[in-house]
Amino acid sequence: MRCDVVSVGTELLLGQIVDTNTVFIGEQLAAHGIASRLQVKVGDNVERIEAVFRQLLVDADALIVCGGLGPTHDDVTREAIAAVMGVELKLDEAIADVIRDLFAQLRRPMADNNMRQAMVPVGAEVIPQRRGTAPGLICPFQLDGDARVIYAIPGVPDEMEEMLERAVLPDLLARAGEPSVIASRVLKVWGESESGLNARLDDVIARLDDDGDVTLAFLARGWNGLEIRLTTSADSAFAAHERLRPWEEEIRAILGGVVFGADGDSMESVVLDALRRRGWTLGLAESLTAGLVAARLAGVPGASDVLRGGLVTYASDVKFELLGVTPGPVISEEAALEMAEGACRVFGADVGLALTGVAGPDRQDDVPVGTVCLAVVGHGAERATTLRLRQSASREQIRQLSVINALDLVRRFLR
Amino acid sequence: MRCDVVSVGTELLLGQIVDTNTVFIGEQLAAHGIASRLQVKVGDNVERIEAVFRQLLVDADALIVCGGLGPTHDDVTREAIAAVMGVELKLDEAIADVIRDLFAQLRRPMADNNMRQAMVPVGAEVIPQRRGTAPGLICPFQLDGDARVIYAIPGVPDEMEEMLERAVLPDLLARAGEPSVIASRVLKVWGESESGLNARLDDVIARLDDDGDVTLAFLARGWNGLEIRLTTSADSAFAAHERLRPWEEEIRAILGGVVFGADGDSMESVVLDALRRRGWTLGLAESLTAGLVAARLAGVPGASDVLRGGLVTYASDVKFELLGVTPGPVISEEAALEMAEGACRVFGADVGLALTGVAGPDRQDDVPVGTVCLAVVGHGAERATTLRLRQSASREQIRQLSVINALDLVRRFLR
Repeated sequence: MRCDVVSVGTELLLGQIVDTNTVFIGEQLAAHGIASRLQVKVGDNVERIEAVFRQLLVDADALIVCGGLGPTHDDVTREAIAAVMGVELKLDEAIADVIRDLFAQLRRPMADNNMRQAMVPVGAEVIPQRRGTAPGLICPFQLDGDARVIYAIPGVPDEMEEMLERAVLPDLLARAGEPSVIASRVLKVWGESESGLNARLDDVIARLDDDGDVTLAFLARGWNGLEIRLTTSADSAFAAHERLRPWEEEIRAILGGVVFGADGDSMESVVLDALRRRGWTLGLAESLTAGLVAARLAGVPGASDVLRGGLVTYASDVKFELLGVTPGPVISEEAALEMAEGACRVFGADVGLALTGVAGPDRQDDVPVGTVCLAVVGHGAERATTLRLRQSASREQIRQLSVINALDLVRRFLR
Repeated sequence: MRCDVVSVGTELLLGQIVDTNTVFIGEQLAAHGIASRLQVKVGDNVERIEAVFRQLLVDADALIVCGGLGPTHDDVTREAIAAVMGVELKLDEAIADVIRDLFAQLRRPMADNNMRQAMVPVGAEVIPQRRGTAPGLICPFQLDGDARVIYAIPGVPDEMEEMLERAVLPDLLARAGEPSVIASRVLKVWGESESGLNARLDDVIARLDDDGDVTLAFLARGWNGLEIRLTTSADSAFAAHERLRPWEEEIRAILGGVVFGADGDSMESVVLDALRRRGWTLGLAESLTAGLVAARLAGVPGASDVLRGGLVTYASDVKFELLGVTPGPVISEEAALEMAEGACRVFGADVGLALTGVAGPDRQDDVPVGTVCLAVVGHGAERATTLRLRQSASREQIRQLSVINALDLVRRFLR
């Protein structure tokens, strides 16, 4: 089974929008073992879209098409599909009713062109819309004697992702002769490289390959660490999850503490949860990261019950005056420790986290660029931990690496 | 002239990398009036790449191909181009010398496969490398009696962008019969929507269209505002810039204060420069943005001579105790003003900036989500300005909009 992908929209060709839809779709197809050989961006031109469909369908069994399903005259994906199928478009009364209801609810007059969204190629199956007004389409047909299928889904990422998972992938797997309930489990990792994970999971990966039922993929998520994604399909959700569970347990046992979470977890949500469970609050003192740690924690809704506040001490004398750091060089584990204690004191927090270092471009206090000192002080200062890092990277990378390493230090401190 | 774009790399199809190269190239082609009809992602497979080239070159006069120029066995762009051209690859001694020198400088042994990068299709012109080891290629040839050209450039974004601007676009414009020195001027805007700019520049845009020598494009840059890009080509850089200048002046006169900078400026660099010129320092007090303003300013190298520090006062009582805010509701212009004064005092800064508001998901102090109060206090508190915003957006959007609005308030305060 080969499934290629087409993104429709002149704005994509003009570079006005980044096409992240095919990234998501490509990932999902790979996770389910379906080959995708070509992914094409094409403008809102019905002849050109039709030509792309025909070219790709010479070798591809299926196409997923994103975008061009809106109500305006330049949304022509429906017309191009009907042309390749060699059928007419007809009004689907059920979709028409949904669209009329939506406008009635919004108390807005409905322009006639909205009914374009209810036009469906004869022989297509409708994927009902849950968000937005654009329904999706499953369009199976014969092309020169071969079975082909085109899936049309909206270009809006939220709507696209939801429809892909709910309707497109199950249908595609069924046509490929695969069981159609899909389940994934994602483990989040920090503190190990992709090649390091590969080496440590060598034996597991070999057995997964032999087994063939569960796929494993590594996905780099930048400042959110690495993901290990286990995916399988089965006849029921229960059976799929049961198939994933022993593999997850084995991987966790091998990797130990570098696995910081699963599925929807982030490093910041894990740190906040660990503090919240103990009823502890957090105070921050940041130098080179200048607020990035605070901002990342505060990005989690509900962070305010844990995060008391933070001090961005960009100038050295601010560290001395406000945090009580001993005057002198400020890039050391000792200075970081004093900063963390100062953060506890200033904010009346149970745990203090501090970061000091040199992001560059120039050395500071004769300390080379990329040197970062981290400290965590716990609950009354009877416990503390520090870490000195040397990172060879750009200014922005040094700052972002410091953030996630600091959060990870808190996580490990709390275990 | 039609120029399509091909991105080569199996990792692109698997969704492991987002293809931002074609976004940049699409933007540049549009800015120079060159049509781009199809943009294709294809894996590291020489037959498939060749097939894509042949299909696109039926209608496209030119192709820009990114990636697949590295030294490993799966870098096969060179082979695919030679196949379409119907020529052999031969070793280019000049490139070979550059690669040997590079390894000698690094004192690293050179694996034989690095010489793959010195292989060039017969009849191709080399674009010398300035970064990285991969040179680019300009490959003109006849295909079924028509003149065609393929440009091959590296997939690494920095190298790609540099080579596109230095060599590919000038060559492409020359082949299209356009003058070959290109110049752009980018104006940065905050505080006006794209449709608002369109309306205000209606007359200018109409005259630019009539004139035909200078193109104007709007580019949305998210939390960095909007860009207005003027582009032209001429026989010399001087002539090109002279052609852009009166249009820039006219646009600035129409738009006034919403234009905050040009070319490499960012809102944060403009604010830092304006403070630095006066010899003033800045202190911050952030609530809902929790360090985002500080982090954004500190992202500019050399910010430390202006930015003294910042307080992230996430808990209300921290605002009262550390900043001297009058106990009571904390989301008001009065509270923001007291926070800004507190920031000046705590950090010994000349100018204080404060942000307080509700990012959601829940109301706070009975104030609705999206309400944000900003204050700037100047140099001894004899001058101050406040702003109350109501933003209907997601939590993250509210935070980011608050950051740029706050920086813009400082900019306007300093004018």
